[in-house]
Parts: sequence; C-alpha cells; structure tokens
Amino acid sequence: MRDKTIDQQLVKYLKSYTDMDDAALEEVVSNLPIKTFQKGDILLHQGQMAEYCIYVISGCVRQYRINEDGDEVTSEFYTEEQWINIFNESIHDQTSKYTLTCLEDCILIYSPSSSEEVMFEKFGALKDMVNLMMGEKLGEINESLYNYASLSPEARYKNLLEKRPGLIDRVPQHQLASYLGIKPESLSRIKKRIAKGQ
Amino acid sequence: MRDKTIDQQLVKYLKSYTDMDDAALEEVVSNLPIKTFQKGDILLHQGQMAEYCIYVISGCVRQYRINEDGDEVTSEFYTEEQWINIFNESIHDQTSKYTLTCLEDCILIYSPSSSEEVMFEKFGALKDMVNLMMGEKLGEINESLYNYASLSPEARYKNLLEKRPGLIDRVPQHQLASYLGIKPESLSRIKKRIAKGQ
Repeated sequence: MRDKTIDQQLVKYLKSYTDMDDAALEEVVSNLPIKTFQKGDILLHQGQMAEYCIYVISGCVRQYRINEDGDEVTSEFYTEEQWINIFNESIHDQTSKYTLTCLEDCILIYSPSSSEEVMFEKFGALKDMVNLMMGEKLGEINESLYNYASLSPEARYKNLLEKRPGLIDRVPQHQLASYLGIKPESLSRIKKRIAKGQ
Repeated sequence: MRDKTIDQQLVKYLKSYTDMDDAALEEVVSNLPIKTFQKGDILLHQGQMAEYCIYVISGCVRQYRINEDGDEVTSEFYTEEQWINIFNESIHDQTSKYTLTCLEDCILIYSPSSSEEVMFEKFGALKDMVNLMMGEKLGEINESLYNYASLSPEARYKNLLEKRPGLIDRVPQHQLASYLGIKPESLSRIKKRIAKGQ
C-alpha cells in the first residue's frame, strides 16, 4: 500500500523546484518506486555500477570509500530530503567509487536511472528540475570544499553542529571523525573543549 | 572577427556530451559570445549577482572568497576547457560567494545566463548536455572533497601535480597553498622534500 502522506510530502518538496501543477507532480511521484531498507543493508558496493537514483525519505545512509591503505573514508551522511550524489568525474564511467550503507532503517526513493529517461520524455519540465537540484548540490559541495580549505577541524565541527544539528547524535563517532577529516581522538578532544565552553 | 579554430574546438568539445549533429552544434557555438580579458581583470565580485556562464577557452581564472578574518581563500583555478562553477546552496540565491579574477590574459565564453533559456528553447538536447556537464562537475568536486578528507597536504599536492601538471607553475604559490588548504611555509617545505626525492 502506497503511503499518501509520503507522496504529499514529495509533491511539496518537488514544488519548490518547478512550476509544474499538482496533478502532474502527483503523477510523477506515483511513478517513483519507494522501498524500505533495514539498518545495515548495503545499497551499492564500491566498484559496482551506480544504476539507481536514491532519495532519503527517512533514515540515514552513509557513503564511504575504502582508500589505498584499506581504511574506510566516510564522505557523506544522507538524511531526510537529500538526494544521494554518486557522480563520477567522467560521464563515461558509472562505476561507483563509494559504498552506500543504511545506518538506520530507511525509507527511500529507489528508482532505476533507466526510468529517468521515460519520465523526462513524458514531463519535459523534469529536466529543468533536475538541473536546479544539481545546481544546489554543486553549491552544497562547493561550500563543504571551501570549509575544508579554510576552516580548522574544530570550526568544521561547529559548522556541522549548526547546519545539521541532529546528525551528530545519529552516527558513530569514528565515522563522524572520518567525515570531518580528523582522527577520532581529535574529535573527542574537540567535543570536550566545546562541552567545557572553551 | 570570429576565430574559426576556436569555434571548431568548441564543437569538438561539445560533441563529447551530445548526439547533436555538427550543423546544430555549429549554430550553438556561433551564438556563444566569446570575449577577451586581461590579466588582473575582475569578472565577478563576491556579493554580486552571478549572471554569466563562463568557460575558459584559454588563460587562467582564480576563484576566491574573503573569509571572516579578511583573508583570501582560493577555492579554484579554472584553466582550458573548464566551466566556472559558482552555484549556491539555494537556487533562490544567485549572489556570488566568490570573486573571479583573471590570473592571465584570457579568452572566455562569457554568456548571459538569461540567454541560456533561449538556447534551450531552440535546442532541447542542450538541457541533457548541461545535465551531463553538471554531473561531471559534481564528480570532480566529490573527488576534491574526498581528497581533502582523506589525504595529507603532501599527498594532495602530489595529486594536483599528477592531475593538473601545468597548473603549479602558472599560479602564485601563496594562492596555491591557500587552494591546498595549507600555509605557504608548509607548501615550501613539501616542495623541498619532493625535490630532494624524499
């Protein structure tokens, strides 16, 4: 059974990116496959083809890569109302450089990329919508990159606290440290310093 | 006078993103305004509206932001065959967070964003092309972000040497250090270490 509340939320979300009317948006949304996943489920393995468009309705998905030393580097935590971004540097290579795993039970839009074309054929305005969404995602990552280049680890942590206040308590701390580009010990020290109000 | 060699190079470049035929691509390219700028010219000021699509045919454009301490943080050097990416986190805010300045004499596509719509109307396939280009740009920035989170400053420098070997000698070293997120003294030390083969 399709959850109408979810569909209504999705229509509302999409409306902020388009002038399409409600009827069209409802049709678009009704065509998006919604699936539930359990904590620990792996959505995509590093090295596999990335063949799904994924959007988080609820839950948390971690994106990580095993680096040359065999260590996991967490590059993103996706939570409510976020599209998963696994684009590559070359359009001719759709092999994922990341693994995607559910840190919590998740409800996701989990739609084969191949069906995107069918939707674009039917609703031309969707291309503009995707364009806007990609523009925003570029803006977000630009900002993350700027933060990496210009902020100290402590300032990055504070920035994350401010921008995504709920995230800190939802994810394992060693993964959070990896995401911030610091060692777990450094994260502990930073948190202690902040707790002391220093 | 329009330089035919440049137009031919642009058609070749665009062909890698689309199935559009040569005649259509030549028309697209002939509509793109090409302008020359001099070393030191400022293309956009931080805080101004970003109203142009800019692509580097030749030369080098530096993107930087003045941070809260009043320091310049260099976030990108754009060189040949790169689109300038000044997207914001919100589609409703087109104020640039960056200044763009020419580090060398430049030949650029310098096209008002408003004329994009007219081109899209005429050539629907251009939307798919832009989509692919944005996907690649996302992939590039994902990679930069991953490098920041996982690599040491020295490894980041070596990575840049490998990926953009010409860049290092084209830009002032204190700006390069800022781009790498390190102090100029650290960059000097890294370069000395590498020169010694350590």
